[in-house]
Amino acid sequence: MKITQKVKKILANYESDNPGTKRNLASILMHGRLGGTGRMVILPVDQGWEHGPARSFAPNPEAYDPHYHYQIAVDAGLNAYAAPLGQLEAGADTFAGAIPTILKVNSSNSWATTKDQAITGSVGDALRLGCAAIGFTIYPCSDQAFDLIEEIREMSEEAKAYGIATVIWSYPRGGDLSKDGETAMDVCAYAAHMAAQLGAHIIKVKPPTAHLEQPEAKKVYEKEKIDISTLAKRVEHVMQSSFNGRRLVVFSGGAAKGLDAVFDEIRELRDGGANGSIIGRNTFQRPREDALKMLDTIIKIYQGKA
Amino acid sequence: MKITQKVKKILANYESDNPGTKRNLASILMHGRLGGTGRMVILPVDQGWEHGPARSFAPNPEAYDPHYHYQIAVDAGLNAYAAPLGQLEAGADTFAGAIPTILKVNSSNSWATTKDQAITGSVGDALRLGCAAIGFTIYPCSDQAFDLIEEIREMSEEAKAYGIATVIWSYPRGGDLSKDGETAMDVCAYAAHMAAQLGAHIIKVKPPTAHLEQPEAKKVYEKEKIDISTLAKRVEHVMQSSFNGRRLVVFSGGAAKGLDAVFDEIRELRDGGANGSIIGRNTFQRPREDALKMLDTIIKIYQGKA
Amino acid sequence: MKITQKVKKILANYESDNPGTKRNLASILMHGRLGGTGRMVILPVDQGWEHGPARSFAPNPEAYDPHYHYQIAVDAGLNAYAAPLGQLEAGADTFAGAIPTILKVNSSNSWATTKDQAITGSVGDALRLGCAAIGFTIYPCSDQAFDLIEEIREMSEEAKAYGIATVIWSYPRGGDLSKDGETAMDVCAYAAHMAAQLGAHIIKVKPPTAHLEQPEAKKVYEKEKIDISTLAKRVEHVMQSSFNGRRLVVFSGGAAKGLDAVFDEIRELRDGGANGSIIGRNTFQRPREDALKMLDTIIKIYQGKA
Amino acid sequence: MKITQKVKKILANYESDNPGTKRNLASILMHGRLGGTGRMVILPVDQGWEHGPARSFAPNPEAYDPHYHYQIAVDAGLNAYAAPLGQLEAGADTFAGAIPTILKVNSSNSWATTKDQAITGSVGDALRLGCAAIGFTIYPCSDQAFDLIEEIREMSEEAKAYGIATVIWSYPRGGDLSKDGETAMDVCAYAAHMAAQLGAHIIKVKPPTAHLEQPEAKKVYEKEKIDISTLAKRVEHVMQSSFNGRRLVVFSGGAAKGLDAVFDEIRELRDGGANGSIIGRNTFQRPREDALKMLDTIIKIYQGKA
Amino acid sequence: MKITQKVKKILANYESDNPGTKRNLASILMHGRLGGTGRMVILPVDQGWEHGPARSFAPNPEAYDPHYHYQIAVDAGLNAYAAPLGQLEAGADTFAGAIPTILKVNSSNSWATTKDQAITGSVGDALRLGCAAIGFTIYPCSDQAFDLIEEIREMSEEAKAYGIATVIWSYPRGGDLSKDGETAMDVCAYAAHMAAQLGAHIIKVKPPTAHLEQPEAKKVYEKEKIDISTLAKRVEHVMQSSFNGRRLVVFSGGAAKGLDAVFDEIRELRDGGANGSIIGRNTFQRPREDALKMLDTIIKIYQGKA
Repeated sequence: MKITQKVKKILANYESDNPGTKRNLASILMHGRLGGTGRMVILPVDQGWEHGPARSFAPNPEAYDPHYHYQIAVDAGLNAYAAPLGQLEAGADTFAGAIPTILKVNSSNSWATTKDQAITGSVGDALRLGCAAIGFTIYPCSDQAFDLIEEIREMSEEAKAYGIATVIWSYPRGGDLSKDGETAMDVCAYAAHMAAQLGAHIIKVKPPTAHLEQPEAKKVYEKEKIDISTLAKRVEHVMQSSFNGRRLVVFSGGAAKGLDAVFDEIRELRDGGANGSIIGRNTFQRPREDALKMLDTIIKIYQGKA
Repeated sequence: MKITQKVKKILANYESDNPGTKRNLASILMHGRLGGTGRMVILPVDQGWEHGPARSFAPNPEAYDPHYHYQIAVDAGLNAYAAPLGQLEAGADTFAGAIPTILKVNSSNSWATTKDQAITGSVGDALRLGCAAIGFTIYPCSDQAFDLIEEIREMSEEAKAYGIATVIWSYPRGGDLSKDGETAMDVCAYAAHMAAQLGAHIIKVKPPTAHLEQPEAKKVYEKEKIDISTLAKRVEHVMQSSFNGRRLVVFSGGAAKGLDAVFDEIRELRDGGANGSIIGRNTFQRPREDALKMLDTIIKIYQGKA
Repeated sequence: MKITQKVKKILANYESDNPGTKRNLASILMHGRLGGTGRMVILPVDQGWEHGPARSFAPNPEAYDPHYHYQIAVDAGLNAYAAPLGQLEAGADTFAGAIPTILKVNSSNSWATTKDQAITGSVGDALRLGCAAIGFTIYPCSDQAFDLIEEIREMSEEAKAYGIATVIWSYPRGGDLSKDGETAMDVCAYAAHMAAQLGAHIIKVKPPTAHLEQPEAKKVYEKEKIDISTLAKRVEHVMQSSFNGRRLVVFSGGAAKGLDAVFDEIRELRDGGANGSIIGRNTFQRPREDALKMLDTIIKIYQGKA
Repeated sequence: MKITQKVKKILANYESDNPGTKRNLASILMHGRLGGTGRMVILPVDQGWEHGPARSFAPNPEAYDPHYHYQIAVDAGLNAYAAPLGQLEAGADTFAGAIPTILKVNSSNSWATTKDQAITGSVGDALRLGCAAIGFTIYPCSDQAFDLIEEIREMSEEAKAYGIATVIWSYPRGGDLSKDGETAMDVCAYAAHMAAQLGAHIIKVKPPTAHLEQPEAKKVYEKEKIDISTLAKRVEHVMQSSFNGRRLVVFSGGAAKGLDAVFDEIRELRDGGANGSIIGRNTFQRPREDALKMLDTIIKIYQGKA
Repeated sequence: MKITQKVKKILANYESDNPGTKRNLASILMHGRLGGTGRMVILPVDQGWEHGPARSFAPNPEAYDPHYHYQIAVDAGLNAYAAPLGQLEAGADTFAGAIPTILKVNSSNSWATTKDQAITGSVGDALRLGCAAIGFTIYPCSDQAFDLIEEIREMSEEAKAYGIATVIWSYPRGGDLSKDGETAMDVCAYAAHMAAQLGAHIIKVKPPTAHLEQPEAKKVYEKEKIDISTLAKRVEHVMQSSFNGRRLVVFSGGAAKGLDAVFDEIRELRDGGANGSIIGRNTFQRPREDALKMLDTIIKIYQGKA
């Protein structure tokens, strides 16, 4: 496989990584219809763990089958498929080599009473399942934030030694944070920065709103006249906060909405310089044909064709 | 031993497992009178730990002897025998090779004040005792759920490396869960799904009732018109929630009842596609001859002959 | 040394143990005047740790010297001597090979405010001191019970790998247990059963009273008409609860009383099938000649000569 | 590189260190415009972690780029550059060998509700990134002080074995300490002493005020007439408290103030015998040319030329 | 070096120790002016950690320098010098071989709010610094007592494997203990006994008063008529409580007092059979010449010449 100049430039930003980790990052960046463009669409399916099987899969019962998700990620030409341990194990052989996979190594569930996640996978699991990366959720702001930070730090050091990339889901919640604060501009940029400081190769955050949560940060945004008037501008600021664009950042979908709104949002992500999208429920909770059509449009948006 | 097509198909679902683990799974699936059918009856005897010796064995004092349980499991032609450390140690040599064993590696007792279990066995113990699998109880919903999840995750990774299978007893309790919620349809399906996500090879849950516990789940069950009107239908939904039938699920007995009710229940389990039953107290708390007769009928039900 | 048939039969009950552990068990069972009979008298001296030196040794000041206890255990023809780390270290060379020793690996003290014990020795210590076994106290019922259980489980697994036997002192206390409950029939049988399930080779409990503590257990004892009318019958029930006599059980002395009462109690222990007695304060708090005379009578009782 | 007599004398104070650690200390002491003088100016950039990216970098947006800080540290002729994991990783290759780096291995953030820091880097990370030292913050006085002390003790032992130097940021806060107490003379001297006792090679504290916090210490300062009337005298006392000048001590900037006040303060640090300054925000929050000019003056002050 | 008969006899009490540990014990017992007598004077300097530098060293500013303490211990002909990590590191090379050193491996400070100590050194540190022993403080009675006990147990096992001796500072405090109880006769004897049980080679306690703290102990002291009327008698009882004199016990200074009172106290320690004294503040808080004179007198007292 001939690595494109675009991807080579991205890989060059990962100055401290060994060739093994770069190869795995490259495998994601070069895979699928967006392969080589520096843009990515990733399918994550951890809602079974997080909300239970019926709430996740009953709207489209084919999705109870772990193979379904592997297959749609392959057929849609996505860059990677992310899921927890059991779900990856159940198709690891059938789809070996068919698409890069990301093992989600921590998980919560709908009964949890703290803003925390349990460790549910390991770097050793990622290696034996042939994964390109591990995925880990941190909850900046929560009372458990330090524990989560220390867990991924340790796992990420191990992963890097074995050539496995690290994806951090950085979702502020808990502590003194208001509900609006979870997607506030300042909070989201800080969350992305924390993931970068932790050594993440790929950072996942939510699209930020124009709300500013922390008073001391608000003062700076206003004094320095940081432009956060449009989503594209806000995404730009997130990229800047992620080592001035030296780290890959992908965005999850915002609040549920119609398809047109989804596409409009993704156009703004693209225009703001986002490296792509991570799209779970919107994919597997609609019929396969509809999902493929939606993903096709999203990919075209990132290709600048829609 | 010639593995049947049925069992070969089941083993093929365990895509990430090494031949050692598959061999041990096969040893359980091919053993006893149901060997090769994909159905199982397993004898579990951990009530001594959980409720004390007199409450467990006084009704049938022969059962104080650890050999008694090995022997009845062998004589009844069951698939496997599950017990805690000391109980297996006490017959490990006499019955070596006579029946596959499952080492229960955590246990609670009637004085415990939290919904937790203590680690009481290890993968190393399972190996030296010649066990085919480890068994572990998680209490989804409880305040200790994350700890339990992390414990079995780590033990299961170790077990898989050594070719030992993992059986997870997934018993929701504690936290905000109501008493009815412990066997609610949504809760039970979620519990089975969590065990599957944790990488269990065999999942043990209780037969679910038609009660729906979590409001957000209830809405989905009603909106999507999931049929939970009969036990068979509910079992079908549990199998679906266990990676669409890609994982083996066995059911413990429900509330105490007459033998006819037990048999009726098992017919529904069978019709719903359950992989079998785990039957403890109902076995060892009645005289040996009665127990053998009961197990004979249960096996015949799973064979479709009763 | 020619192992007696009696001891061979006992060793055969330890089906999972390696020859190293069996040799160490045999060394205890074959040592002293009761050697070969399947009965044992063991001298434990951990009262210095537990109650302080003056309360323990001032009544018989020779007992401040660690050699004193080794010597009396040897001279009385006992089976083994049990003590904490420092106390064994202080005579380990002088008495090397003179009598089997048991390293007490956890200890409490009279200032402790929880029903817990600190780890004060290790399997490595037992090995370098030439001990035949480790000894560990669990407090079933206490809030720390799970921690204690997990500690001995881990140490016992290590000990078994190195051929060291495990003795568990199972003393229910703490939690919701009443003072009477600490020696209740049901509680004591349960405590012995827990030690057996944990893989103990030798179990130490207190002589049970006829009190029944747990309501649900009480119902069973009454319904099943378990005979607990005499101490001998109660001891029989403890032996039954210890894997139907497949595990060695020794009893500590009951409440302080005159020598005749002590001897009467031991006759009942013997008649109930107990494997022996563990006698600390009653030994070292009286003058050496009196202690030797007392131990002589106790041994004769177990020999059926008194 | 020919080590100066001045630096040789300093290195000789590190009597227990292996040649690897001495080489790394020497690399810092011999680097840049102050190389060989025993004085240092170090650039630390961990404000992104601590206060978020906008509050840290918006005043001078070039500073969002991790390369910016490496470059200014090189161009200004500083002795070393200190930063957290991700920030060093992002330039580790481009600037390999260009300037000694210090990996900050723990970090807090503006959401933390305890006076604690999370571990965010390791000795292994420092080795693979080619760092000369690890940096660690302790908060003497805080409820987490013992944990922080134990963490750096363990990491520092590992670092010393691998030839990596240890820098301790000793910032008293939390517990019963008053706000004024955080920079009190007695507290600051004690904080420096604690870092020295922990085995730090380089100690970082804040410039102390003349306030005395602890009543029992105050009595001694007054009785022994310790001169703390000027900052230079107070710095002298800090150096004395750091093993009588046998350990390198650098000072962070005090409260925000004009450049002249900064320079005056540094003259007092110099005159008190400080080994140098650590200057973060004052550097990267002003335009590059201004920053270079400021650093030039500071270096000249330490050279005795300003 | 020819080991004296007196020291040979002492070493013979350490029956379980390897030749490496005996050699290190011998190095302390044979060193200095009391070398070979079985008596010791040890200089401990951990007050910088415990109370801060000014409170410790301002009365005699030369003492800020770590070399000062090594030198005075050498010049006074003491048996050993004990200090925390950083303080030993700062002179480890200059004084290598000049005097046996004891690495204090845990420490507290004047801000601590619990009766606990942080681990601040390791057996590995002791080895690389050429120490003869590690020193560790336990606080019997405190809520952290079990943690402290488990820490030294583990470190001491490691130390013994490497031939490093163990010194335990056993200072009862915290929990329900009264202030008077900290030096009560019963408490002090118990504290010494606990250190002995933990496997300490040298035990350090405070000189006991005639106060009796624990009611149940008090009854025994009175009933058994234990003579505690003079300090010499009380020391005798402490020695008896330390395995009947089989363990070395040294005493710290009591409450601050004039030199004559210090000497009188030491005469009583000597007459009670104490193995020596540990004298910190009294040494380094007076001018060097005064300190040398004081130590000379103390040594003469132990030699029976004063």
